[in-house]
Amino acid sequence: MSTETSKPELTHFDATGQAHMVDVGNKNNSHRIALARGHIRMQAATLAIIQQGNAKKGDVIGIARIAAIMAAKRTSDLIPLCHPLALTRVSVDFSIDASNNTVTCEAQVETVGKTGVEMEALTAVQVGLLTIYDMCKAVDRGMVMTDIRVLEKHGGKSGDWVADIDK
Amino acid sequence: MSTETSKPELTHFDATGQAHMVDVGNKNNSHRIALARGHIRMQAATLAIIQQGNAKKGDVIGIARIAAIMAAKRTSDLIPLCHPLALTRVSVDFSIDASNNTVTCEAQVETVGKTGVEMEALTAVQVGLLTIYDMCKAVDRGMVMTDIRVLEKHGGKSGDWVADIDK
Amino acid sequence: MSTETSKPELTHFDATGQAHMVDVGNKNNSHRIALARGHIRMQAATLAIIQQGNAKKGDVIGIARIAAIMAAKRTSDLIPLCHPLALTRVSVDFSIDASNNTVTCEAQVETVGKTGVEMEALTAVQVGLLTIYDMCKAVDRGMVMTDIRVLEKHGGKSGDWVADIDK
Amino acid sequence: MSTETSKPELTHFDATGQAHMVDVGNKNNSHRIALARGHIRMQAATLAIIQQGNAKKGDVIGIARIAAIMAAKRTSDLIPLCHPLALTRVSVDFSIDASNNTVTCEAQVETVGKTGVEMEALTAVQVGLLTIYDMCKAVDRGMVMTDIRVLEKHGGKSGDWVADIDK
Amino acid sequence: MSTETSKPELTHFDATGQAHMVDVGNKNNSHRIALARGHIRMQAATLAIIQQGNAKKGDVIGIARIAAIMAAKRTSDLIPLCHPLALTRVSVDFSIDASNNTVTCEAQVETVGKTGVEMEALTAVQVGLLTIYDMCKAVDRGMVMTDIRVLEKHGGKSGDWVADIDK
Amino acid sequence: MSTETSKPELTHFDATGQAHMVDVGNKNNSHRIALARGHIRMQAATLAIIQQGNAKKGDVIGIARIAAIMAAKRTSDLIPLCHPLALTRVSVDFSIDASNNTVTCEAQVETVGKTGVEMEALTAVQVGLLTIYDMCKAVDRGMVMTDIRVLEKHGGKSGDWVADIDK
Repeated sequence: MSTETSKPELTHFDATGQAHMVDVGNKNNSHRIALARGHIRMQAATLAIIQQGNAKKGDVIGIARIAAIMAAKRTSDLIPLCHPLALTRVSVDFSIDASNNTVTCEAQVETVGKTGVEMEALTAVQVGLLTIYDMCKAVDRGMVMTDIRVLEKHGGKSGDWVADIDK
Repeated sequence: MSTETSKPELTHFDATGQAHMVDVGNKNNSHRIALARGHIRMQAATLAIIQQGNAKKGDVIGIARIAAIMAAKRTSDLIPLCHPLALTRVSVDFSIDASNNTVTCEAQVETVGKTGVEMEALTAVQVGLLTIYDMCKAVDRGMVMTDIRVLEKHGGKSGDWVADIDK
Repeated sequence: MSTETSKPELTHFDATGQAHMVDVGNKNNSHRIALARGHIRMQAATLAIIQQGNAKKGDVIGIARIAAIMAAKRTSDLIPLCHPLALTRVSVDFSIDASNNTVTCEAQVETVGKTGVEMEALTAVQVGLLTIYDMCKAVDRGMVMTDIRVLEKHGGKSGDWVADIDK
Repeated sequence: MSTETSKPELTHFDATGQAHMVDVGNKNNSHRIALARGHIRMQAATLAIIQQGNAKKGDVIGIARIAAIMAAKRTSDLIPLCHPLALTRVSVDFSIDASNNTVTCEAQVETVGKTGVEMEALTAVQVGLLTIYDMCKAVDRGMVMTDIRVLEKHGGKSGDWVADIDK
Repeated sequence: MSTETSKPELTHFDATGQAHMVDVGNKNNSHRIALARGHIRMQAATLAIIQQGNAKKGDVIGIARIAAIMAAKRTSDLIPLCHPLALTRVSVDFSIDASNNTVTCEAQVETVGKTGVEMEALTAVQVGLLTIYDMCKAVDRGMVMTDIRVLEKHGGKSGDWVADIDK
Repeated sequence: MSTETSKPELTHFDATGQAHMVDVGNKNNSHRIALARGHIRMQAATLAIIQQGNAKKGDVIGIARIAAIMAAKRTSDLIPLCHPLALTRVSVDFSIDASNNTVTCEAQVETVGKTGVEMEALTAVQVGLLTIYDMCKAVDRGMVMTDIRVLEKHGGKSGDWVADIDK
């Protein structure tokens, strides 16, 4: 990304400023990986219900995982200039941080293709968190989804990238 | 929401803990409104590009708005236990806070129906922010989406609800 | 439409020029009907194949009709600011004009709802014609789709409207 | 296309006349390009509104472009016997011909795959025009979409094809 | 259904034999319920895995339930002449019959609308069973889905109907 | 499948029992074929109507075929952990067994890809049968769909598999 200071440009627009789905026909197929993460913060009582459900019944996390995986496959339907891609792997994990009343969703998406899968990983995280919100909103409308970002991406011409944060 | 402390329960599960799309057949059709909001934080240089584009060419915000509106209509396809609803209004606004290098997306969704539209408003915000990420990721992969929440909802049996925050 | 000369405005934009899905919450549910029509012009030999197929085997018209009906139901997924509607009737007819080497597609769509169904009728016609193109393109790539328009609409506050043409 | 006079046949039907999605498994992946075009004709006052909006606010053309690009990705959902394809490029341009009160939409679609992308280019044009209709219908219901056709296609076994018209 | 012996007719075709989405605009909104059921038969070892997973980890049934509920909402996208409906309830139950190496899926769907929901209930059952097949096919490709039918429907002009079987 | 008796496992779950879309990135692209079949049993009078329609008008079978082909393309939208695949062929045949009052649907699906197409073939069969049910339910609600299964699959690491039945 060293070139961006000299002449940053948004590739989704052509020379006249019109949006287009950018040409990737000449890019090589390579193994692409993206890892994204986000959180949902809630009341302690809400988190307690999720934890019980997870162990016993009313599996909020299990349903959010399925929604996240399915959403990754719908990414190019939702994001206007995103290329359709044949994903080869989608994996979504949730972890609970009781001290912060937070559920964390982390999605890893892979393909062998001509463009990266950051958007697919982010979409999986967003819909995973949204599904938790949906299932718990009857008891806690004030839940907040936060710090949703790409952590890493690998493959393609730009190669490896790792977010500059303390994970 | 005063009852939730006494006996909180997730309505998306039946008495045996199995997920279901909850019965709303006996609910009245009422005018439902939900307002949701979220932010995306970026480098100052990225925000500058968006601002230029907004004024001149390469309209990132305009495209994100369309994506957000279309996503609101797809909510029940994405969120497993969400009822399909005939939305009567979707309005999405973006504002730029240059001092915090942040774009804010705010979505208001309305229907005349048997269930609320909080999920539709949140989905619009999420996809609006995702679209900004997609269009700017070539220059700034480290953008972070944050503080995505419902601000208000009106209508239905539970009536008005306003988030307890300093807006 | 008498008011349009004095102050024409595009209702899909708000006062600041931003696109929105316009508020129809206060509109009455009424019986809405729209009728649209379009044509596809081809080589005489292509039309002959369709006519044979129609009578005997390889039913181009029958398949185009199904595609048109299904497309009407997808309209709000395709047209950004179009309201989702529960259609109550979709009827699609094709007729062959051998003297002009043309197939005509006519779609009538109805609902009981808060907005009109012109877009659904036009989408049905467009996809009906596209499907004919798809099925015949192996023998005739130069086919042209033409004169696709709304013929009539009924219901709603603006009432009846009939196109000013010689049908 | 010289063989079509001797024995024209619709490849979308098998030997018994039943529709199928034709086998392309043995075709080579090649770089495919298709270019399609169509027009929408309107009142002079309607075109004036679009032109103002384009320059200042209420960006009809910008929204139609996004709808067209997204529709190209939905083609195989809409056209029954169309193969799903991973598009590598979608570009949609609009031009205004004030002397004829017409907006022209031109779409170029590309892939590296086993079948052509004519249908994707045509679908993009159709939905681009439909979106203009939708956004302007409040002031001009009589708009007509016309002369929608493939202009060129390249790649695949049949190679180059250019429509026999005065562009 | 007493009239069907005298003059049975398929309402999905008009008087000329052309398919259409039949007009329901004049039907009353009534509370509609449909109950459908089907089975999947497998090897004893496969069923044992599902039973373990259900209790401990690898929740095949839980995932199949979510797929079934989501599929009910997609019915009008899949079945060409099916009306889109705003479902008010979807409930899907699975039961295990170890003596017959069978999992049974039962779906109840409800709406307040102008047409019945038999197709939605059947679609939920079909996709519920398909999902079990998908998740277990690595160990048992010979699974068979069987006896998928509507058990009951209520509401609408034709009123109650109960399948004539020993449940 | 010889290993399954020693250590059967469901590949759709990871080592901790969480569902994922399994990694196929390292699998080779190979020519994949799957053949599936199912039946729908009805009253003799209903079958007679279908047979008439098939020959003359009201083409139930033709419409069911289109629905089946289109559904094959939607498989990864419906089945949560199913990989999206670019199908290269879909062929659906129906046959009538008047002595058993049964219509049989058989679907063959092919791709050149990293995973098999059994789910696509089964989905095509299910939706083909569902569409017959939909179109005939006005005269025969008691129709039963039965014996839906994979008959053969070819390609991939596990190679050929043929169901152990008397076809």
